[in-house]
Amino acid sequence: MVRYVGVGNLVRLIGHVSIETVIRDLAGYIEADFHRWPDFEKTPRLASHSSDGVIELMPASDGASYGFKYVNGHPANTKAGLQTVTAFGVLSDVATGYPVLLAEMTILTALRTAATSALAARCLARPDARTMALIGLGAQSEFQALAFKTLLGITHLRVFDVEPAAATKLVRNLGGHGLDIVVASSSHDAVIGADIVTTVTADKLKATILSDNMIGAGVHVNAVGGDCPGKTELHPDILRRGRVFVELAEQTRIEGEIQQMPEDFPVVELWRVITGEASGRRDPREITIFDSVGFATEDFSALRYLRDRIHGSDFFEEIDLLAEPSDPRDLFSLLKPSRSGDPA
Amino acid sequence: MVRYVGVGNLVRLIGHVSIETVIRDLAGYIEADFHRWPDFEKTPRLASHSSDGVIELMPASDGASYGFKYVNGHPANTKAGLQTVTAFGVLSDVATGYPVLLAEMTILTALRTAATSALAARCLARPDARTMALIGLGAQSEFQALAFKTLLGITHLRVFDVEPAAATKLVRNLGGHGLDIVVASSSHDAVIGADIVTTVTADKLKATILSDNMIGAGVHVNAVGGDCPGKTELHPDILRRGRVFVELAEQTRIEGEIQQMPEDFPVVELWRVITGEASGRRDPREITIFDSVGFATEDFSALRYLRDRIHGSDFFEEIDLLAEPSDPRDLFSLLKPSRSGDPA
Repeated sequence: MVRYVGVGNLVRLIGHVSIETVIRDLAGYIEADFHRWPDFEKTPRLASHSSDGVIELMPASDGASYGFKYVNGHPANTKAGLQTVTAFGVLSDVATGYPVLLAEMTILTALRTAATSALAARCLARPDARTMALIGLGAQSEFQALAFKTLLGITHLRVFDVEPAAATKLVRNLGGHGLDIVVASSSHDAVIGADIVTTVTADKLKATILSDNMIGAGVHVNAVGGDCPGKTELHPDILRRGRVFVELAEQTRIEGEIQQMPEDFPVVELWRVITGEASGRRDPREITIFDSVGFATEDFSALRYLRDRIHGSDFFEEIDLLAEPSDPRDLFSLLKPSRSGDPA
Repeated sequence: MVRYVGVGNLVRLIGHVSIETVIRDLAGYIEADFHRWPDFEKTPRLASHSSDGVIELMPASDGASYGFKYVNGHPANTKAGLQTVTAFGVLSDVATGYPVLLAEMTILTALRTAATSALAARCLARPDARTMALIGLGAQSEFQALAFKTLLGITHLRVFDVEPAAATKLVRNLGGHGLDIVVASSSHDAVIGADIVTTVTADKLKATILSDNMIGAGVHVNAVGGDCPGKTELHPDILRRGRVFVELAEQTRIEGEIQQMPEDFPVVELWRVITGEASGRRDPREITIFDSVGFATEDFSALRYLRDRIHGSDFFEEIDLLAEPSDPRDLFSLLKPSRSGDPA
């Protein structure tokens, strides 16, 4: 049997331990895996493009476990009341090839993206940062806000979305989480006094959510929404003024903000900062940019966290995804009449 | 919700309609997809190798649906009472990227492999073929036997395995299916008088299961077991004497029997025979060889068959693999207390 964590059980788990605890624990797994980054088999994602969007398979392995995520990106889905991005994932045992966990990953991806953003900001933002601007208040925004509160001690949010209803939604959702929230009237207004600026907009176009004059000395920019070819949020001048940090340079040059820059534009891979091989913020006046596109190891970390977290709990079901004949050479025995009753 | 067909429901379905009917219907789907072969997006499988085996993701898309199979190959699993190969698959809607079906594919792969073999043999074996030699009596053997009975009218089997218990198992499993079965004392003995020779052995080594003198004029060879780099079953002289048919030449040159042959060794892709662009058997004395390695479109066909077959039936469950907030921009709402009770 394979353990299955669907949306219902993941929501129950988060409700049981609190979203802040889940984010903190998940960040610990992601950080641990960044620490052993060179040990991973890192494969380019396998993408199938259509006129409506993309379906991707993102595998990663550390030699003991193998994980992959299925994820789609369909910008027009929202109009039909569907989500732009949905995801699920599987973790397997490398020694046998047997899957051990199947999990929903739509919510889990929002959690791991936010945890990774906050983890990066812990190395890159000023330690005294307390105010974050949050631009783009879609499906991922609350997760980003709570990760920065939990991991960095952000207390003040300045939020903006072109759609006013999105701000109303965010304020409603974050009620009771101890954040002081100001709804700004524009992106320009949102960034005033912000120590950290998070952009997580959904446009699938080259957009300039942040122009150069909006980013002052000492700001950390957490650029989450520029995450596929043709989709960026920052004016290139911001990238030139700051130091840019990425997950895997090779992937980010295609998908991230730096797709706007020459091939040899200098970037630092985040794992080097986490292991201490490279410096993070060096100066309170430096501008730092985390050009986040999401990488398969982060999904691997999330699956690994979930596998360990549900151990000994009831936050999962078991499903009969694998045929398990008592004699492995006798697969056909499963079809014999004595076995063909409803095993449920 | 996503429809889920686990082992229990697939076994119930097969028991309900009979395995022969499933094989016949499945072969119809596979044949239909071979007919529109050029319409498919065909991607190389994405493999992760370890010292113990391999884990592969095999995607295919026809522009309306997208399917992928997860499959492992771990030769040492059998010693631990586990299966060498397990698999599951997902079918999605290309327009939205949403998965619509999750299914066990260990049994389904055995069925689709056998159906494809028999489909090829229908074009390649002599129409009067009634006797098949079956060498290698592991997990897939009974499925091969029943596919050839169902689609070609094979009535007589001559079977052999180096492990005598495997023959006992096959004879027991195929009792009541109307096949006349002779247990042969060797591979040489098994092929005597056979019109078709199927090899489906499990050795992960270059082995010569069939030597040149064992294959006489007019025989069709269905070579299923030579299916990964380093694993072959036929002496190269057999390949030189016959005409060789493959699924996708580019993949079979790496994985199939023809990995023993020069890069330009002539082969015919099966879809060309099925569409009538290329000839199948041209002469009763010709030797034909189907060098089968399995291709992602066959898994796609199997998932498509299953999706259609369970429609209006109760041979599936629904699982909460996808987060579905009523407002797609409000993923976080799923975590709010009013929603965090156990939805089950």
